[in-house]
Amino acid sequence: MANHSPKPIRCKAAVCRAAGEPLTIEEVVVDPPKAFEIRIKIVCTSLCHSDITFWRGKATFPRILGHEAYGVVESVGEQVEGFAAGDTVVPTFLGQCDRCPGCASEHNNVCTTVPFVFGPGMRRDGTSRFRDAQGNPVHDLVAVSSFSEYTVVDVNQVVKIDPAVPPKLACLLSCGAGTGVGGAWRAAKVEPGSSVVIFGLGSVGLAEIGKLTGGGADYSFECIGVSSVMTDAFNCTRPGKGKTIILGLEKNNDPISLPSLDLLSGKCVMGSFFGGIKPKTDIPILAKKCMNKELELDGLVTHEVGLQEINKAFDLLLQGKSLRCIIWMDKGSGHGR
Amino acid sequence: MANHSPKPIRCKAAVCRAAGEPLTIEEVVVDPPKAFEIRIKIVCTSLCHSDITFWRGKATFPRILGHEAYGVVESVGEQVEGFAAGDTVVPTFLGQCDRCPGCASEHNNVCTTVPFVFGPGMRRDGTSRFRDAQGNPVHDLVAVSSFSEYTVVDVNQVVKIDPAVPPKLACLLSCGAGTGVGGAWRAAKVEPGSSVVIFGLGSVGLAEIGKLTGGGADYSFECIGVSSVMTDAFNCTRPGKGKTIILGLEKNNDPISLPSLDLLSGKCVMGSFFGGIKPKTDIPILAKKCMNKELELDGLVTHEVGLQEINKAFDLLLQGKSLRCIIWMDKGSGHGR
Repeated sequence: MANHSPKPIRCKAAVCRAAGEPLTIEEVVVDPPKAFEIRIKIVCTSLCHSDITFWRGKATFPRILGHEAYGVVESVGEQVEGFAAGDTVVPTFLGQCDRCPGCASEHNNVCTTVPFVFGPGMRRDGTSRFRDAQGNPVHDLVAVSSFSEYTVVDVNQVVKIDPAVPPKLACLLSCGAGTGVGGAWRAAKVEPGSSVVIFGLGSVGLAEIGKLTGGGADYSFECIGVSSVMTDAFNCTRPGKGKTIILGLEKNNDPISLPSLDLLSGKCVMGSFFGGIKPKTDIPILAKKCMNKELELDGLVTHEVGLQEINKAFDLLLQGKSLRCIIWMDKGSGHGR
Repeated sequence: MANHSPKPIRCKAAVCRAAGEPLTIEEVVVDPPKAFEIRIKIVCTSLCHSDITFWRGKATFPRILGHEAYGVVESVGEQVEGFAAGDTVVPTFLGQCDRCPGCASEHNNVCTTVPFVFGPGMRRDGTSRFRDAQGNPVHDLVAVSSFSEYTVVDVNQVVKIDPAVPPKLACLLSCGAGTGVGGAWRAAKVEPGSSVVIFGLGSVGLAEIGKLTGGGADYSFECIGVSSVMTDAFNCTRPGKGKTIILGLEKNNDPISLPSLDLLSGKCVMGSFFGGIKPKTDIPILAKKCMNKELELDGLVTHEVGLQEINKAFDLLLQGKSLRCIIWMDKGSGHGR
């Protein structure tokens, strides 16, 4: 099934050359996929708060950000099974091998075969598949880097998607909506009739909608990644039962501080990477729910732009004007489905 | 069923007159039970780390400590139903009314009808049932105060026990062993084959026995009540799944600090008051397990003394020489069953 002779591809990508600076649209070279890797032609991608965190941070630059996307397999490396050119897919920052203890456990979604790392580099050899016009390496983001017309992703991090699913909804499931819905469904296991409070109402938070009730909330979700907000989220829950789910990536890795006596009353705090969902198992389930309207994500998409306008997507999110801005690779904006 | 004319009782009690000072055995007056209250003749009591915490702390003195005990109903106040003189019972620091939202929920063991408070005072009117020889009030501890030949406890905080259960085992179930076993059974829901690490091996910790395994523990229990140990307990658990259960009462109410990125990986921290058990529902179940040897608690009792020797129980625990020291009210020591 593998295509053994893919060549480097020249294409456009939005490159972040320095922290907090506007991205530049550049021509880059995307290397062929190595063993266990898949090269994907990105159809659309979207901007997540975590991209902003890495854009602002002390990361290694130049770097191609973006990790929430939808695309089509262009070619596959050696030893890739189950994928072929033309498959519609979403890349995911979290992998799933289905063989390690983490994947085998129904209570764990952290794969240890190709573990998640915050630093750049492909998961198996630590190198990048991107070079700029001068031939210098360009770093990736969480081994996904979807702000590029083409990218290379580990087979563990690619999920096949029914081509009937609207691209922008599939795109949202690959991170934000997957995290939000998964947080309530897989991590918190929210029960009908429970009171829910959401801190940090980006599109992750709004994928769950709840109201504050007296006596403290049964569940609170922190989606923004600020240590003090995590404590607020904990404090608003019901003594004896309240469960706080941390979904946001703390920008400075500041510790979360919890009042120990309140905790002892029976409260619970759990972190949840990707809302506790197993990408390859659960994203297709969520995609099916989108198709039959059990899950309505259209409202999360507030803006759509072309790759050339990607800095507008940053501005909108920074100004709090957008929930999710879809960035389409084929120039024009305003694609609808 | 109620006995409407109980009189004040003069009896012996171990009184704590100042923080950290040896208790003094004094004659005290124990008032009759008011409405919804039960006066109990204590058969035996035991010393728990939390008694040490209150003994050392900035609490109001004079005070009668003790909250882990077994006894016989001496008289009941008005409106008490379901209890009569002669019933064998254990008092519990946590109440259960079976009617409030907390009691009605299967995920909550915090009763809001007669809520737990750290401060002294009976739960319904905030007053004490104890006076010293001079007629001055003596404060209670968590409305139990079992270091006395007689005490008065709210009906919500009294659990009937099969008289066939050995008194010292019933006594342990009323706090320490109940918390330890409950922590694994009700709060953590430990699965067979899981790796477990216990921090603070008093008798709470030893009621659950586990070994450290590679990759991080599936569960860790903090039983000692020290904020930094709570963080250690969190750090030793497995990324993606590890669950830390806080059972210890933090002596200074210092906050617990958790690395936010490690938490985000899918770890979980939950506090558990009384191990998440519902006293009236679960203590009889645990007592039955003791009777048929499914639950072996005898090894937790390392020492037995009479009330006159209660300060020896403090010394043994402070020196780390005892797990549980049973204090028998009828003077002699060395009672066995």
